[in-house]
Amino acid sequence: MTVNEALKQIEQFENTNSALNHAAGILYYDGDTVAPEGSVEIRALTLGEISRMSYELITAPRFIEALEVLNANSDSLSEIDRRKVSELYREYDNTRKIPMQEMIDFQVHLTESSSVWHKAKENNDYASFEPYLQKTFDTLKRFASYTDPDKDPYEVCLDKYERGLTVEKCDLFFAALREKLVPLIERVCKAEQIDDSKLKLNYPKAQQEKFTDYLVDVMDIDRKHFGVGETEHPFTINFTSKDVRITTHYYEDNLASSLYSVVHECGHALYELNSMPELFRTTLEGGVSMAIHESQSRFYENIIGRSKIFCALILPFLKKEFPEQLSGVSEDEFYRMINRSEPSLIRTEADELTYSLHVMVRYELEKKMMAGEITAKELPAEWNRLYKEYLGVDVPDDKHGVLQDSHWSNANIGYFPSYALGSAYGAQLLEEMKKDVDVEAAVKSGKLTAINDWLRERIWKFGCLYDPTDLFNMVCGEFDPDVYVAYLDKKFSEVYGI
Amino acid sequence: MTVNEALKQIEQFENTNSALNHAAGILYYDGDTVAPEGSVEIRALTLGEISRMSYELITAPRFIEALEVLNANSDSLSEIDRRKVSELYREYDNTRKIPMQEMIDFQVHLTESSSVWHKAKENNDYASFEPYLQKTFDTLKRFASYTDPDKDPYEVCLDKYERGLTVEKCDLFFAALREKLVPLIERVCKAEQIDDSKLKLNYPKAQQEKFTDYLVDVMDIDRKHFGVGETEHPFTINFTSKDVRITTHYYEDNLASSLYSVVHECGHALYELNSMPELFRTTLEGGVSMAIHESQSRFYENIIGRSKIFCALILPFLKKEFPEQLSGVSEDEFYRMINRSEPSLIRTEADELTYSLHVMVRYELEKKMMAGEITAKELPAEWNRLYKEYLGVDVPDDKHGVLQDSHWSNANIGYFPSYALGSAYGAQLLEEMKKDVDVEAAVKSGKLTAINDWLRERIWKFGCLYDPTDLFNMVCGEFDPDVYVAYLDKKFSEVYGI
Repeated sequence: MTVNEALKQIEQFENTNSALNHAAGILYYDGDTVAPEGSVEIRALTLGEISRMSYELITAPRFIEALEVLNANSDSLSEIDRRKVSELYREYDNTRKIPMQEMIDFQVHLTESSSVWHKAKENNDYASFEPYLQKTFDTLKRFASYTDPDKDPYEVCLDKYERGLTVEKCDLFFAALREKLVPLIERVCKAEQIDDSKLKLNYPKAQQEKFTDYLVDVMDIDRKHFGVGETEHPFTINFTSKDVRITTHYYEDNLASSLYSVVHECGHALYELNSMPELFRTTLEGGVSMAIHESQSRFYENIIGRSKIFCALILPFLKKEFPEQLSGVSEDEFYRMINRSEPSLIRTEADELTYSLHVMVRYELEKKMMAGEITAKELPAEWNRLYKEYLGVDVPDDKHGVLQDSHWSNANIGYFPSYALGSAYGAQLLEEMKKDVDVEAAVKSGKLTAINDWLRERIWKFGCLYDPTDLFNMVCGEFDPDVYVAYLDKKFSEVYGI
Repeated sequence: MTVNEALKQIEQFENTNSALNHAAGILYYDGDTVAPEGSVEIRALTLGEISRMSYELITAPRFIEALEVLNANSDSLSEIDRRKVSELYREYDNTRKIPMQEMIDFQVHLTESSSVWHKAKENNDYASFEPYLQKTFDTLKRFASYTDPDKDPYEVCLDKYERGLTVEKCDLFFAALREKLVPLIERVCKAEQIDDSKLKLNYPKAQQEKFTDYLVDVMDIDRKHFGVGETEHPFTINFTSKDVRITTHYYEDNLASSLYSVVHECGHALYELNSMPELFRTTLEGGVSMAIHESQSRFYENIIGRSKIFCALILPFLKKEFPEQLSGVSEDEFYRMINRSEPSLIRTEADELTYSLHVMVRYELEKKMMAGEITAKELPAEWNRLYKEYLGVDVPDDKHGVLQDSHWSNANIGYFPSYALGSAYGAQLLEEMKKDVDVEAAVKSGKLTAINDWLRERIWKFGCLYDPTDLFNMVCGEFDPDVYVAYLDKKFSEVYGI
């Protein structure tokens, strides 16, 4: 096989791989947004088949031969092709170590697991979900023993979402965060609490939908390749950079919920929409890791979206749509209501300051589950114990506790630390960005174009071309969680006048 | 290969084939309901890849070997397996005669064609759609020359939707219909016209949606496996019998439009939902042909849905939702408004009596296009000429003319005659059904269960087990269009008091 033939082979692989991913993604999206309840069985079977096809695709002898030819001639390849080959080889190597039937069965299991979780959450019925969750953890452990027998299985999970992330790094990061944030949170708790009851009045869905539309305009998203759906748990999904969807959940008694989940998911969407055209439909298209992804989404959600200037920007629109509910609310009051901080039960509704503590609970639990120190049966009690310890709150039931997130039902174990890491990355991104962009003026203009342009050129366009840590270092230098802590300290000291 | 090994091979083929069809179907459904406009390109590429995989699947040497082994041992097979083998062999034989790349290219073309048609219809811009349509006809002609070089290419198309249907049969059927219906329509036109303006008042979408829900209840559809979406042009799509979707289009100035498209599509859906479990995920699952399909959908839409007793059933619900709009309307008035007959422009909005004339226009045009007697450029003028000749109406623009239906944009050429044939089948079904079921009492009960049960046992459950003509004959004996004409004559003579 010549290098050119091998490159052709890789191209055909990527076309088929992209089609299978696209199909699986649409099935998932449809399943979560509009599919009837009884469609789970056939969707699981189809996704199982697709996963079989993916397995056969990446372990096909002709494909492997092409990879080997290109590996041997990597000097003659372009930077993109070289990276492609090494990424594909890694994927192939991970796949081939897992028996095909186990991979297919796991895919079928996950489709069912996701459906069981939805119902379990709705009915506050953890017992029905427990065996699925145990099986998910057990399977991930077994898969890790196939792919990396000498490695801590939880580290195998972490590495999947953030290459190079280790338990040691996480432990250090979270310890530093806890040490510095807990005293700050205590100071905030002692200060006079902000009354945000006006955000909890009745906000009809129809107007909230209009507001979503407005936010998409502000974020300067190309609607030709973007859509918004509704699900229990908001998420972003992309079918190449040409078709990216976000979802949200409207609560009529909570204005901030959909607002900030839309801004958050739009951050993910912008990243996915802006890979450079050379990466279209290839393995290198799209976000490189979850921490980089969350650094984008949480940057827009919190650093931009919960800033004074953004609050001032959106208030007039909100006052027009909800004149009674927001009557008499000043810019400053609105900003303070939006940033009210209080240890609470639900991660996705948590304020910027206490958010990382929610992540730490999940991190500790995942670590224990993967180490076999606790079982799925013991998870709810452990969850509740840690919420009391870290956040000081009593969990009333599993719906508001261990069942709240969709991640575990989809086997996204090792993902949560990315939220905290991404949040911390965001603070450093802001510092860098300020050197080139007048961020306040950009927000004030009503279109985040200048901010988007800066991030596109430094992060988005590269897709998976660089390892996440390298990419972050290229833009921000060394990672330093103190920048994040300082940012939070300054912001919340001001908000609470402490 | 032993018979058992061959059967295993067929089973694996059917699993993969079902998954590919499911994926392609969901992509299409998503594309028509919620996908962003700019997603067409990647969807076309993905559907092209799926069609390549389907092609490779059905032409795989191991699969063909299995078919041959089973063919040689067909005596030892169950009825279902025997039928499967002959159907799969036919499909394989048709597929292999068409070069793979041409098949893929056509799939890509159709995804674009569908998107171009949507825009063309919206903007009344036939010129933009014309080259796509010409290419569709040209390709179907070429494909017919590959698969059946000695056959009239239009007959190849007809046979795809209704096995055994020929131009001669269609010509005879339509001639008989025209001969007998045109005088009836003329008599109706001379009678005093029914004022149905109350159906054209403002009917807000939110209440129409509630009404759709109510209709699904009346039709006794299993919601666990059924969903309703919104599209420009209503359709039914199924992903095995476990997941069937219909779509509708709400017009706020037209109560009857969504009402009868929902009832119509629910007829299709019931057929698809009720294949017997043994056929799940196999080639034999689902409706056997379009005429049998339309005989179900148009039976529910017209024979049941536009009957006096059905109108009486739904009126109270409608009066509750739309008290002002329908104030003072009696059962009899409502029934007559619903059955107002008048030659018009839009097929899907046409009344039961003049409907077949719309179909005949399309039949004549398809015949001419496939024979090369006219080109896509000449289609609009021919369309308008035939509407004047058959229905006596002037077509104001292509949006209300040649661009109105989605069928041609999806290459569904040869489909339209099924609507008229299915309508005629329906009249005979009613006669047969009446021997076993008190149809009026069944409707009056508010749930169509007894009617559904009768159709399930005689038609639905068999899936594709029998050829459509055989199936019809098993249930109704010989086909006799006069039964249909007599039904229409009786109904409309009474409605118009002539």
